[in-house]
Amino acid sequence: MDEATVSTPHMAWRVDADRLWQRLMALAAIGATPGGGVDRQALSKEEIASWRLMIGWALSAGLEPSTDAVGNLFIALPGMDREAAPVLTGSHLDSQPGGGRFDGVYGVVAALEVLTTCAERGVRPPVDMVCVAWMNEEGSRFAPGMMGSEAFAGVRSLNAVRAARDADGICVADALDALHAAFPALRQRPLGFAVSAYVEAHIEQGAVLEAQGCVIGVVTGIQGKKTFDVVIKGERGHAGTLAMADRRDALEAFSRVATALYREVGGYDAAVKFTIGQLQVEPNAPSVVPERVRLRIDLRHPDNTVLDLLGQRLNALCMAGAAPCTATVTPLVDAPSNGFDPTLQQAIVEATERIGQTHMRILSAAGHDARHLAPLCPSAMIFIPCRDGVSHAEHEWAEPAHVTAGANVLLQLLLPYFLAPRREPKHYPC
Amino acid sequence: MDEATVSTPHMAWRVDADRLWQRLMALAAIGATPGGGVDRQALSKEEIASWRLMIGWALSAGLEPSTDAVGNLFIALPGMDREAAPVLTGSHLDSQPGGGRFDGVYGVVAALEVLTTCAERGVRPPVDMVCVAWMNEEGSRFAPGMMGSEAFAGVRSLNAVRAARDADGICVADALDALHAAFPALRQRPLGFAVSAYVEAHIEQGAVLEAQGCVIGVVTGIQGKKTFDVVIKGERGHAGTLAMADRRDALEAFSRVATALYREVGGYDAAVKFTIGQLQVEPNAPSVVPERVRLRIDLRHPDNTVLDLLGQRLNALCMAGAAPCTATVTPLVDAPSNGFDPTLQQAIVEATERIGQTHMRILSAAGHDARHLAPLCPSAMIFIPCRDGVSHAEHEWAEPAHVTAGANVLLQLLLPYFLAPRREPKHYPC
Repeated sequence: MDEATVSTPHMAWRVDADRLWQRLMALAAIGATPGGGVDRQALSKEEIASWRLMIGWALSAGLEPSTDAVGNLFIALPGMDREAAPVLTGSHLDSQPGGGRFDGVYGVVAALEVLTTCAERGVRPPVDMVCVAWMNEEGSRFAPGMMGSEAFAGVRSLNAVRAARDADGICVADALDALHAAFPALRQRPLGFAVSAYVEAHIEQGAVLEAQGCVIGVVTGIQGKKTFDVVIKGERGHAGTLAMADRRDALEAFSRVATALYREVGGYDAAVKFTIGQLQVEPNAPSVVPERVRLRIDLRHPDNTVLDLLGQRLNALCMAGAAPCTATVTPLVDAPSNGFDPTLQQAIVEATERIGQTHMRILSAAGHDARHLAPLCPSAMIFIPCRDGVSHAEHEWAEPAHVTAGANVLLQLLLPYFLAPRREPKHYPC
Repeated sequence: MDEATVSTPHMAWRVDADRLWQRLMALAAIGATPGGGVDRQALSKEEIASWRLMIGWALSAGLEPSTDAVGNLFIALPGMDREAAPVLTGSHLDSQPGGGRFDGVYGVVAALEVLTTCAERGVRPPVDMVCVAWMNEEGSRFAPGMMGSEAFAGVRSLNAVRAARDADGICVADALDALHAAFPALRQRPLGFAVSAYVEAHIEQGAVLEAQGCVIGVVTGIQGKKTFDVVIKGERGHAGTLAMADRRDALEAFSRVATALYREVGGYDAAVKFTIGQLQVEPNAPSVVPERVRLRIDLRHPDNTVLDLLGQRLNALCMAGAAPCTATVTPLVDAPSNGFDPTLQQAIVEATERIGQTHMRILSAAGHDARHLAPLCPSAMIFIPCRDGVSHAEHEWAEPAHVTAGANVLLQLLLPYFLAPRREPKHYPC
């Protein structure tokens, strides 16, 4: 799309900064935690409540909400050719437990704001412009994450998604049915459809932009990620009677294995990220030698060769180090690093310059739904800073000025899609 | 008490082995787990159901059930002097999650069987003979354990006990009220009263008797025990973005500290028992660097000097090893090793010889309520073997012949208390 197709007046269009911020804060009130954060799990009653807000805002702007079989939420500004592949922009509404007010929800609200701004100006784009909220990006209630975008992209089957269960034994299938039942009038799109471009705005979740004093991150790609489910199995016994020499203590084996993993995998180089975020002990009673430890490992690296090497090393350390217990390592996610569309990256640079903000190229250390859209269509991400690089925490914070700037970059980036090519010039907005 | 006071006919008295076994199995059906074990938590509906059985059996034998403010269950064979300090015998009805069919419940049912046997023979003892089931010995639902015997002995205040909460936030006060409400007709004794002697029968929960081919363990004492609550505090962050060098990962600190503890404390000598049985991670989400780890440590040793030394070492290793996180160590239980009454030990030896069984002196590696009775009155314990020394596990098992033998030793040990001194010889049973 040519820069020349956007005429000067549109280059001055800006989003409604107050409305954008107020909507973010209204969503932050749903699942608000005492510490100022948000706990809004995928397919929870809090997510249903956030859908109600989103759909209300959409309808009041004349936008068209819909969903699909995996519980993604779509909000469309109808285009002239309703059959043509739409442009998608958005992120996710679910949060980590004790998460923040910006992770995910920012990209959705910014997308809605861009659509609303254009709708208010009477824009009828050539194709549908669609705001999307992907189901279960975080993976904290149902593992693994990114279920909505994976099912949309055909990376994971709907049946596999529906079978996953949360810690209370509730399966995605039942939670999805409850979500859909809460919105009986909502149109269901087929799962997965052609998309002409995808853009996701998000907080950086790192401190690079802040350190460099830049407002906009032009995301070059996403670092590779592997996740593993590890079970260490020993034998339970009485804490007061079983001799240490006769024990097969699963937590003792875990602490030895984990110490080696933090050192040999987590300490490989400055770019690796190694996290054991989740751990369960059985039977988890004060005077019983633990029989079983189950843990979830998150491993990331921008270099796919190193990532593969570290995955193998992790597996070997678990298998060899657990004795006299046994270890089982199950790979869950294997997402190599990917790069975003260079043309879209350049367009983000130009959009940022157009609104007079600073920018830099940046690699995403966090995973995002955009990872699964990138193989399907030209895709890109726009980052804004978050204070001290803190995310997945209650005190996650983004400055209102940065929130506005990111949305304006998204608007300026997408305007060519809204405005050209125009099949019916009489609909051209002024 | 003099052996000569027991005349020959009573030396031939034996418990009803079938009834004893059937009652054990009937109680094992309450809270039965799929793996053949028992999950009967303190003050749970399962414990209430087990009280119903016990009270029914008691009333049908003409025995008098009662309780106290802390939820101990008493079943008395009334003596001639109802004001005199009774003889107590029993153990506990609560189990570990996934515990076995014998731990605790055996001592209660054996005690009831001894009282029932004597009641059936028309015995009216000089003082009340009382079967007791102490509240919350295991400490798996409400920590720490032995709440009933500690409150009875004045070691822990009733208010402190009532304030403890389970993992669901339910406090002992509410659970106790529910227990008492389930038995509105049950008489309440004052909390704590003078006791003239205490005997507790129990499975060994170790493999010493089995290895030595002995049926009866004459328990010389209980090894010392300390328990600690440890909190390691770090800072949460995003698993994909926070650089390893900038992390304060509470689970990483835990695994280093724990590895050192298992080696430096758990490996001190062959007699030490060191267990981290319980562990909670916060926020416990797959892609969040853990902020907080809370663990429960169980440390035991027969030598009080060594136990104190290891307690200090444990504290030092936690405090020094947790950096860049911080550790807080809170001592919960500090129970030095104690010895049981030598005269009662000798009486157990003689009772065992009277029924023609083998015996040996043995130190209890596990803690028992008898620990808290020992400072109050002459106290003793009788052990029977359990298969492979396994306890706190679903496949915990005791042979019916050993179950019977232990109860017969208890009967023969207590008969002098039942039969002499006799104030009203006309009630002397034949």
